[in-house]
Amino acid sequence: LEQVYVGRHLLTAEVLGPFCRSLKVVIIVDRAVRDLYGTKLAQQLGGELLTVASGETAKTKDTVEQLLEAFFKMGLGRDTMLIALGGGVTTDLVGFVASIYMRGLPLILIPTTLLAMVDAAIGGKTAINTSFGKNLIGTIYPPSAIFADLETLKTLPEKEWLNGLAEILKIGLVQDADLCWLAQQDRKDSELISKAIQAKIDVVEQDIREQGIRHILNFGHTIGHGLESMSNYLLAHGEAVAMGSLVEAHLSWQLGYLTENSFLQIKKWYECFSLQLPSNYDRHRFFQAMLHDKKKSKGELRFVLIDQIGHAVPFEGAFCRTVSLQELEPSLVWMESVYG
Amino acid sequence: LEQVYVGRHLLTAEVLGPFCRSLKVVIIVDRAVRDLYGTKLAQQLGGELLTVASGETAKTKDTVEQLLEAFFKMGLGRDTMLIALGGGVTTDLVGFVASIYMRGLPLILIPTTLLAMVDAAIGGKTAINTSFGKNLIGTIYPPSAIFADLETLKTLPEKEWLNGLAEILKIGLVQDADLCWLAQQDRKDSELISKAIQAKIDVVEQDIREQGIRHILNFGHTIGHGLESMSNYLLAHGEAVAMGSLVEAHLSWQLGYLTENSFLQIKKWYECFSLQLPSNYDRHRFFQAMLHDKKKSKGELRFVLIDQIGHAVPFEGAFCRTVSLQELEPSLVWMESVYG
Repeated sequence: LEQVYVGRHLLTAEVLGPFCRSLKVVIIVDRAVRDLYGTKLAQQLGGELLTVASGETAKTKDTVEQLLEAFFKMGLGRDTMLIALGGGVTTDLVGFVASIYMRGLPLILIPTTLLAMVDAAIGGKTAINTSFGKNLIGTIYPPSAIFADLETLKTLPEKEWLNGLAEILKIGLVQDADLCWLAQQDRKDSELISKAIQAKIDVVEQDIREQGIRHILNFGHTIGHGLESMSNYLLAHGEAVAMGSLVEAHLSWQLGYLTENSFLQIKKWYECFSLQLPSNYDRHRFFQAMLHDKKKSKGELRFVLIDQIGHAVPFEGAFCRTVSLQELEPSLVWMESVYG
Repeated sequence: LEQVYVGRHLLTAEVLGPFCRSLKVVIIVDRAVRDLYGTKLAQQLGGELLTVASGETAKTKDTVEQLLEAFFKMGLGRDTMLIALGGGVTTDLVGFVASIYMRGLPLILIPTTLLAMVDAAIGGKTAINTSFGKNLIGTIYPPSAIFADLETLKTLPEKEWLNGLAEILKIGLVQDADLCWLAQQDRKDSELISKAIQAKIDVVEQDIREQGIRHILNFGHTIGHGLESMSNYLLAHGEAVAMGSLVEAHLSWQLGYLTENSFLQIKKWYECFSLQLPSNYDRHRFFQAMLHDKKKSKGELRFVLIDQIGHAVPFEGAFCRTVSLQELEPSLVWMESVYG
């Protein structure tokens, strides 16, 4: 698997130069990141800078085609190091382009949001969205290296801290309860961030192609992706995953895997999110969105469930199980009544 | 690496069924293959059949988008076994789609042309063409299994045998001289086909991501792809590779790696091809087409060269070297004078 470096002041020629030696360097950023870090890094590395649109709606095949066309016009060959500098949208998108351009260019990811550091950039998943759902087109393409520079979080808006926290809590719920307790104390703690990254690496290293244990990272995402998709991505990924994790914890309790006390503890951790369903929420359309999720099998919904805080139910190595609409309903009724 | 099965009468539920167990089966074919083998195989396996356009011009992003859209509308999830049944266009195209749909579906390749059996289907390369050149978008995505059913070659047109022969001779020139001599005796021999497949597997297994020795399989392809691209793919891949291999053997001689006698022997082997440059050949446009090739480095042309029949020059593990336009010119002058 890729090498991950967590630290400060990593965006320099001293640190990154040795990884790019003798390669042409192309750095891809969105506008905001270009102004904050991109221009300076391009100067440091003597690289070219390409700017893409920002936000979840930029993660489309149109943007992919624009980048591919730019690469062809620049005459890029395999002697090019691509650097994706930015949030999860940028790392997912550039990762996908890197994986399909000439069957794969060397790639460095430099996540600049907490969400990208603890989730999107780790584990080799690349993706774009389609009209049928989120992340439905993509590849598994581990980069050469990942640099999480905690200094870049200094400019992170408060809302973005919550997006990252949602993934930290999620990995805490399925893999390492300590993360949840640490996050409760200080959610900007750099040790918390390092530990969350390591927890994800620990899971992904066992199962890069998501045949078994890696499924646990989808906790909260069946509900979460459904909500995000039906809101046309107006709902932030973190809010969607926070709501999804909470509802799937509720489901774990309802199906008899998790104690009520554990669920109530989890519910407290999510109070800082001020969760709310998207304004266009409609149960029928929500089902449709969930049914296009990758995790479904033969048209059925599958869920990762937890049997204690920090542990997912193994289900004989599948790490997920089919849940009928009937079994799911009480948790949806609860979600609609509390957050509708 | 993938498992490869070479034999006869493999397109049955008995042989293929165990590989598809509990998965939904979707078989992708072009029209000709549908009528010859597709409909029957779909019945055998209880699978759905999707038909794509045939020929190199179908290997485009438009076809990819049509397939992806069809998959979404069919509601395909990861519990789907895709089967690509057909020539190299079908296996390259379906391989690419399989690699990017939901980050990878299980895939079986059933090449039905000699060219696809000995080359396209072996080694995990997937690709589509772009207006900038051939195979410039693609992934490395080894299938679950490959079945080369020699019975399907019974319906193969004579011209297609030559396309396959070009790749067999190529791998012979860089890896196993026996293949060239065997092909000279009987180019439809099933042992020859098995040995050619094995020779390619031997190379690819050492270097799946094409960092070193796998480059030798590009022998003949720098020239070949350039010709093919500038002819707008009117030139068959086999003819292009045959011409490319011959010219690159000439270049190997001109640069002092190969003896004249070896070159003259090689030239004899290619007489059965009735080689001819494409009617729109123009050296300037040919250069432009070559310069968009993936194998170039920093705008320079790189070539695999041979120092004897059956052996590529290692060049310290790089297995290719830069050749200046000046060094290349005598071989182009020769090509233009003999085949123009």
